[in-house]
Amino acid sequence: MEIQYYFEIFGVVFYGISGALAADEKSSKDWFGVTFTAFITSLGGGTIRDVLLGAYPIVWIKDVNILYAVATGIILAALFYNFFMKLRKTFMLFDTLGIALFTIVGVEKALGLGVSPVVAIIMGMFTAIMGGVIRDMMINELPIVFRKEIYASACLAGAVLYVLLDTLGIDRTLNFFLAGSLIVAIRLLALRYNLAIPKFKSH
Amino acid sequence: MEIQYYFEIFGVVFYGISGALAADEKSSKDWFGVTFTAFITSLGGGTIRDVLLGAYPIVWIKDVNILYAVATGIILAALFYNFFMKLRKTFMLFDTLGIALFTIVGVEKALGLGVSPVVAIIMGMFTAIMGGVIRDMMINELPIVFRKEIYASACLAGAVLYVLLDTLGIDRTLNFFLAGSLIVAIRLLALRYNLAIPKFKSH
Amino acid sequence: MEIQYYFEIFGVVFYGISGALAADEKSSKDWFGVTFTAFITSLGGGTIRDVLLGAYPIVWIKDVNILYAVATGIILAALFYNFFMKLRKTFMLFDTLGIALFTIVGVEKALGLGVSPVVAIIMGMFTAIMGGVIRDMMINELPIVFRKEIYASACLAGAVLYVLLDTLGIDRTLNFFLAGSLIVAIRLLALRYNLAIPKFKSH
Repeated sequence: MEIQYYFEIFGVVFYGISGALAADEKSSKDWFGVTFTAFITSLGGGTIRDVLLGAYPIVWIKDVNILYAVATGIILAALFYNFFMKLRKTFMLFDTLGIALFTIVGVEKALGLGVSPVVAIIMGMFTAIMGGVIRDMMINELPIVFRKEIYASACLAGAVLYVLLDTLGIDRTLNFFLAGSLIVAIRLLALRYNLAIPKFKSH
Repeated sequence: MEIQYYFEIFGVVFYGISGALAADEKSSKDWFGVTFTAFITSLGGGTIRDVLLGAYPIVWIKDVNILYAVATGIILAALFYNFFMKLRKTFMLFDTLGIALFTIVGVEKALGLGVSPVVAIIMGMFTAIMGGVIRDMMINELPIVFRKEIYASACLAGAVLYVLLDTLGIDRTLNFFLAGSLIVAIRLLALRYNLAIPKFKSH
Repeated sequence: MEIQYYFEIFGVVFYGISGALAADEKSSKDWFGVTFTAFITSLGGGTIRDVLLGAYPIVWIKDVNILYAVATGIILAALFYNFFMKLRKTFMLFDTLGIALFTIVGVEKALGLGVSPVVAIIMGMFTAIMGGVIRDMMINELPIVFRKEIYASACLAGAVLYVLLDTLGIDRTLNFFLAGSLIVAIRLLALRYNLAIPKFKSH
């Protein structure tokens, strides 16, 4: 087992926690609704990536541990609810680590399947954000990609860096940390300084 | 042709009726909108199952009779509109039979493709509910899985029972009836006694 | 390269323009949101078609030029914003040309994969409309297929005509123009005379 595998599992647990907290926060749901939402949020991005790439069997059908990792995240969220809720609000901790890990995992998987760099970049971003997009579509909220926060574009920047450094032949694990750190840094700076993407047209 | 095939066709007709009635009830739609919605509701779950499993050609591309079964349901809904509307409201008849049949059909298909039991259970539930989830996402309603009714969790319970009995070597047709009956029973009891899943966290 | 390929590329550019203008108009979005929306609107239909057909690699992963065509449309929309906005409102120009081209491209691709005519018709319509459906689902608007305008049903009519003429052995390029013209004609007549599909049941 490679270190990347453990990162993926950790990313899934983080997403499971984040998904469960967000689901519960939004409308005080029952166990079924929270579990369903956490699974969709955690695995939706990787699922869409694998379906688009035709990479069958898709990640959580090939490796059921991924499903248990989400379940672990949900149970942790229930057990340490108040503690995690505070961590989540203060540091955006689980979301930010989750999107960073998922972006790089997604880029790597796509590159490994031999797609062009621009497709690999899209797949990295999709892995990180599409679970949340589907979740927001289901609960009829405007997906976070349309809100003013810098979120998906941080993933995009990290994915571009990973592909660039990969082309330059940089070591995979080092690249993982560099590109992941860029995502975390952009995300935290954007939150701290309230940065936003320019408008398409000023009205 | 096996008996399971006829159950699937019946399930599709039931879903077609239910989908057409629900679509029309919700916003007095035109023929196109009702037909489109009924098709999405009826075939969305099986389509998602087959795409996730990579089971190509997917069910209604492989067997066009499935498309005609939905069309039959829609035409029946138009012809016997008032009668069916009453049946639907009183007994939740078409929905309940539809989700029971679809859950078992989905579990069986997944098991037949050799996936792990937990994935087969998910596929059974997805077959039954995801068509309705997509429909609700399209018309901007909160999907039924998030409402307080016991619905998706009845499918989950039936899927778990089917997989358990299947592991014990029980006859497939008998299992079909037992697990299907459990879904119908849970659903009807939940409606009758207003049962609900416990909250994730009490606020 | 065949003429159909250039039509597809033009269709994508039209859709990119239309997607960017619609995204921007709806909520004054940032560059990221507009770009994301334009990509989903332009490529969502073809993506769903290819995933349903299991036609891997899907269109924009196989041919990255498709991605550049969308990007071109977005940049054109930004450069000639006011001019295009006027054209768009007056003539529904880009949308109508886009759905006509996409419908025929989708039918052709499906027929080429040997599916049954009824499936090819569905795939043609899906190619044209599903990008917009996903877009509307994301921004929590009622998808255009449910609004009273004749839109998806124009695609359906064009797709039926194409399949019929194809069965009669008509030349592919001629068929392309005939079926495409039917879609444009129905769409423009419906807008001009405010035509609508009959209600499913009169309440």
